[in-house]
Amino acid sequence: MDHSTEEAQTKEMDIRSLSSSHRHSQSERYIHKVGVPPKQNLFKEFRETLKETFFADDPLRPFKDQSRSQKFILGIQTIFPIFEWGRKYNLKKLRGDLIAGLTIASLCIPQDIGYAKLANLDPQYGLYSSFVPPLIYAFMGSSRDIAIGPVAVVSLLLGTMLQNELDPINEKAQYQRLAFTATFFAGITQVTLGFFRLGFLIDFLSHAAIVGFMGGAAVTIALQQLKGFLGIKKFTKKSDIISVMHSVVASAHHGWNWQTIAIGASFLSFLLFAKFIGKKNKKFFWVPAIAPLISVILSTFFVYITRADKQGVQIVKNIKKGINPSSVNEIYFSGDYLLKGFRIGVVAGMIGLTEAIAIGRTFAAMKDYQLDGNKEMVALGAMNVVGSMTSCYVATGSFSRSAVNYMAGCETAVSNIVMSCVVFLTLEFITPLFKYTPNAILASIIINAVISLIDIGAATLLWKIDKFDFVACMGAFFGVVFSSVEIGLLIAVSISFAKILLQVTRPRTAILGKVPRTTVYRNIQQYPEATKVPGVLIVRVDSAIYFSNSNYVKERILRWLEDEEEEVKAATYQPRIQFLIVEMSPVTDIDTSGIHALEGLHRSLEKREVQLILANPGPVVMDKLHASSFTSLIGEDNIFLTVADAVSSRAPKLVEEQP
Amino acid sequence: MDHSTEEAQTKEMDIRSLSSSHRHSQSERYIHKVGVPPKQNLFKEFRETLKETFFADDPLRPFKDQSRSQKFILGIQTIFPIFEWGRKYNLKKLRGDLIAGLTIASLCIPQDIGYAKLANLDPQYGLYSSFVPPLIYAFMGSSRDIAIGPVAVVSLLLGTMLQNELDPINEKAQYQRLAFTATFFAGITQVTLGFFRLGFLIDFLSHAAIVGFMGGAAVTIALQQLKGFLGIKKFTKKSDIISVMHSVVASAHHGWNWQTIAIGASFLSFLLFAKFIGKKNKKFFWVPAIAPLISVILSTFFVYITRADKQGVQIVKNIKKGINPSSVNEIYFSGDYLLKGFRIGVVAGMIGLTEAIAIGRTFAAMKDYQLDGNKEMVALGAMNVVGSMTSCYVATGSFSRSAVNYMAGCETAVSNIVMSCVVFLTLEFITPLFKYTPNAILASIIINAVISLIDIGAATLLWKIDKFDFVACMGAFFGVVFSSVEIGLLIAVSISFAKILLQVTRPRTAILGKVPRTTVYRNIQQYPEATKVPGVLIVRVDSAIYFSNSNYVKERILRWLEDEEEEVKAATYQPRIQFLIVEMSPVTDIDTSGIHALEGLHRSLEKREVQLILANPGPVVMDKLHASSFTSLIGEDNIFLTVADAVSSRAPKLVEEQP
Repeated sequence: MDHSTEEAQTKEMDIRSLSSSHRHSQSERYIHKVGVPPKQNLFKEFRETLKETFFADDPLRPFKDQSRSQKFILGIQTIFPIFEWGRKYNLKKLRGDLIAGLTIASLCIPQDIGYAKLANLDPQYGLYSSFVPPLIYAFMGSSRDIAIGPVAVVSLLLGTMLQNELDPINEKAQYQRLAFTATFFAGITQVTLGFFRLGFLIDFLSHAAIVGFMGGAAVTIALQQLKGFLGIKKFTKKSDIISVMHSVVASAHHGWNWQTIAIGASFLSFLLFAKFIGKKNKKFFWVPAIAPLISVILSTFFVYITRADKQGVQIVKNIKKGINPSSVNEIYFSGDYLLKGFRIGVVAGMIGLTEAIAIGRTFAAMKDYQLDGNKEMVALGAMNVVGSMTSCYVATGSFSRSAVNYMAGCETAVSNIVMSCVVFLTLEFITPLFKYTPNAILASIIINAVISLIDIGAATLLWKIDKFDFVACMGAFFGVVFSSVEIGLLIAVSISFAKILLQVTRPRTAILGKVPRTTVYRNIQQYPEATKVPGVLIVRVDSAIYFSNSNYVKERILRWLEDEEEEVKAATYQPRIQFLIVEMSPVTDIDTSGIHALEGLHRSLEKREVQLILANPGPVVMDKLHASSFTSLIGEDNIFLTVADAVSSRAPKLVEEQP
Repeated sequence: MDHSTEEAQTKEMDIRSLSSSHRHSQSERYIHKVGVPPKQNLFKEFRETLKETFFADDPLRPFKDQSRSQKFILGIQTIFPIFEWGRKYNLKKLRGDLIAGLTIASLCIPQDIGYAKLANLDPQYGLYSSFVPPLIYAFMGSSRDIAIGPVAVVSLLLGTMLQNELDPINEKAQYQRLAFTATFFAGITQVTLGFFRLGFLIDFLSHAAIVGFMGGAAVTIALQQLKGFLGIKKFTKKSDIISVMHSVVASAHHGWNWQTIAIGASFLSFLLFAKFIGKKNKKFFWVPAIAPLISVILSTFFVYITRADKQGVQIVKNIKKGINPSSVNEIYFSGDYLLKGFRIGVVAGMIGLTEAIAIGRTFAAMKDYQLDGNKEMVALGAMNVVGSMTSCYVATGSFSRSAVNYMAGCETAVSNIVMSCVVFLTLEFITPLFKYTPNAILASIIINAVISLIDIGAATLLWKIDKFDFVACMGAFFGVVFSSVEIGLLIAVSISFAKILLQVTRPRTAILGKVPRTTVYRNIQQYPEATKVPGVLIVRVDSAIYFSNSNYVKERILRWLEDEEEEVKAATYQPRIQFLIVEMSPVTDIDTSGIHALEGLHRSLEKREVQLILANPGPVVMDKLHASSFTSLIGEDNIFLTVADAVSSRAPKLVEEQP
């Protein structure tokens, strides 16, 4: 606010003789009173708040003044956007979607098989999850570029959390049932959040936290792959770097299988090279996209002819043929697994959402179309609920595949339908051919896929811009790597919260001084040339005053006063402080504790015969000051519109002093 | 900020012909650039933040440039303030302290016996807790008015939490041991918070929450007393109103004892009358103060002669004679009771602190002396640690007794020493006389004591000032009354947090318009006379932009733009929106997510050929905008000091339009 006053008032100085400026900055008739906003009707106020909180985007706007039939059609289109954009669909678009669909299909099939392993499920479940959910999403979702299916991070999260409850090998049946239960509740969570417009909750996972969390998860996943990559038989169940490294080293001199390593290493380098080419020249984006499938085919063929599996190269063995069986009766709707499934589902669902919404927003911004976060959540939730009943585990939007989808020129969600059809055909006819696919390849594919989740550029940017964000990021990263995915998540969220709370617990305060030859008051630390006004102390508070900071603000201001009084004592010919002006411009809100603090401040100042003056309180604050009759306590005439007003009317001496 | 600009700029208008004002608001040479603060050294910045967070009150200031011996003496005085104020102690002060000490002693003895019952402990433990802790506090504490001892709310809290773990009758020994363990850890918690300067944590229990919590606790405690008051034998263990009322009604036709009721009722009315007198005329404050002791003496004597205990009037039976036995070996330093004790201790300790600090601050403000919250916590903690080793349970500052202490004209903590001496004599010689004291009296005394915790005035004030605070207050109240003390506490804290988070999740935004005949831009809803600038949309954001609100802010601004563009389409001869000015004055801070949001906003605007312009970003924001090179993204010359500047340089047409 200083800026503006300065700006405006230096103008004054520029065009008028200083004397004149004093005359009128002294003369009261130019001093405007702070207006009190008209008292709002409570219900209206409440409704407004509610609307801004839950219906900020005013989703019902299109329904306004429409005929009943119109409303019905609009309703259908809102739930199933496909009926809206479907009517404008044409062959040109189809062409784009077809190419994109085939590309992501070739990318997703090998990834799915690998990700299923991350979730400790049989490979076919990965493929199942790339068949049904994308179809549902195509009808209900409103993003045009997102590619739906299982993703590395959620698979890992689900895997680790499920395996804390049940053993994936010995209690396989229950394990799968719990997985479906978790998926079901993940879907329910997502629908609920969307339906009750609680979408903003996922915003609490800050960008910084996500960067760190994703990076950590990527490292963890890569480490997990060492099992398949080195062909280690007995591998730790834990996911933290210590225990993984331990079991890697422990099995070094006998547990490793050089044939496996050879295959894995060669194809990994092939994949990395492909990725490099794709990066180098955007029009070769398809090279890294189809590389995984190629390496699967080649390696499978190679193993098949050399029978390397006899040399201990672990292979996928068999993938169950045929499409998703129903799993409705598999879901636990009672017993204590219900609760466990619910707990896991909520976490997995939230993470899934965060990833999907982030992707959706990114591409929506690129192609500049609006995306209703809450509607999106309903779509994602519905797709997971249906998925949980058709043997799928939690699916969401995949960063890597969505990017490929976008670059392959997808036009609409039809690309998801195409992909899902390809997966369908795979399940029906091709799965047996995967028998000889070496696990090492899947490991290489996953490693290659998750590497791109480690975003060092973003981390360095965080460091440059906001140290606190960087700490949150690192906290999440090391939490995931050294402890577990959940712990990392917990750390990330708590640091993010702590940041907000810290900001409202320790707001900045600044002493203002008068910038020479103007009537502007600025932070004297930022503007050394600014001079304090004799007999007046001017403090600015840089935040809303709430219970969490009210005491601090009060005590901080009093301490500023003490320091000042000491200085004055030290100096000679200095008048004692008579007025304490609190510049309130940045104080956007105040609550009862805040007002109590101001009253306390006023009391302590009275004891020291210092007059409390408020400058420029905003409408909301002014309203509450009136409601609490604080204004009458310190006197209406001690509330000014600007510091300049306050000074000129309280300490006119100063004005004479001017050159 | 608008205010100030207006204020300053209307001046302009007043004294200059409008034309002149245009001339120069057009001419670029008056347009000041926004200054970028000098880059701060990271370590310095970090240290600053740390200092403001933990050492805001700069506790080491007096130690600066002092001789070693001086430092040592100062150190001793910091830990034991008695050595500081003790040297200025005189007879006049002693007189005040003596009277005050005797008064609070007469008040505390009967209360202690009752409160011990609330904690399911034998009556003498209440007295123990009024003997040792006050002594310790007198040496270490820095408040002059606080009266130390067991208090109703903490006793209830401790009682309910302990009896969830152990049965106070059948497992009496362990129960007591757990009580001491909890007390020990309550003390440790308090010392830790104080020593590590975490005092601000208790500020998170907002004033509103405390009002509700205290009121609820008072109601619960009063209900608990119905047992003693109605002479009911078998009474529920639960503390919620439902189960209490149930067991009261259930025992109505046989379980009640009319003699007990008669005694209780008559003395309760006596106490209430005494309180009324005290309220009526401040100089009779001592009447309610000694009334409890008088009623104890009278009732005891009455029961003794009438042997009413033979008619089923329950009496205290015997209180163990002699002062506190040691309880060092009773504390659980191992086993799972260690953890339970710890958990309970932390909660009890926090509540104890909240109450004591609130009292300390109140009276410190009244007599205008500074109180170091953290030092105070160390004192309270130390006193509870010592207490836990001398058979005391959690003691803290009592609202009612401190008020009496203050009114009785206490001068220093010596009044606590006096009280503690009286309690010592009581323990040594008088306890046997309490044998015939009817429980009904204790019940009446407690009811009479806690009634004053129900602060309806405060609640109504909350309603008037801040509806959200009122909700928090009611949440705490009903949580305590209908569920349990812990639940109430939990609700209160979570609502308080929710409030902060909501504020940073849904900040206010406003469309600014030009107030006629000025160059001031104000919220057009607040100032209907303000007119929009053709071709320009001006939005103000009223909060720091963080990850929790960055998306909302971005989308809200875009929605404002859409609404505006629709209007423009509707109207004829309206130029399309070319510039979107974001007024940043209230934006005190921004983080990486916030900057990403701004970048996103900039991108979407570019797509619509609308130019993004920032007005008056603060130093911190400016700093980060540079660090992220956002400034160069939108162009340095699109950041202005004021909205007026931005408009006059971007849409000079407007200025001509003016009359």
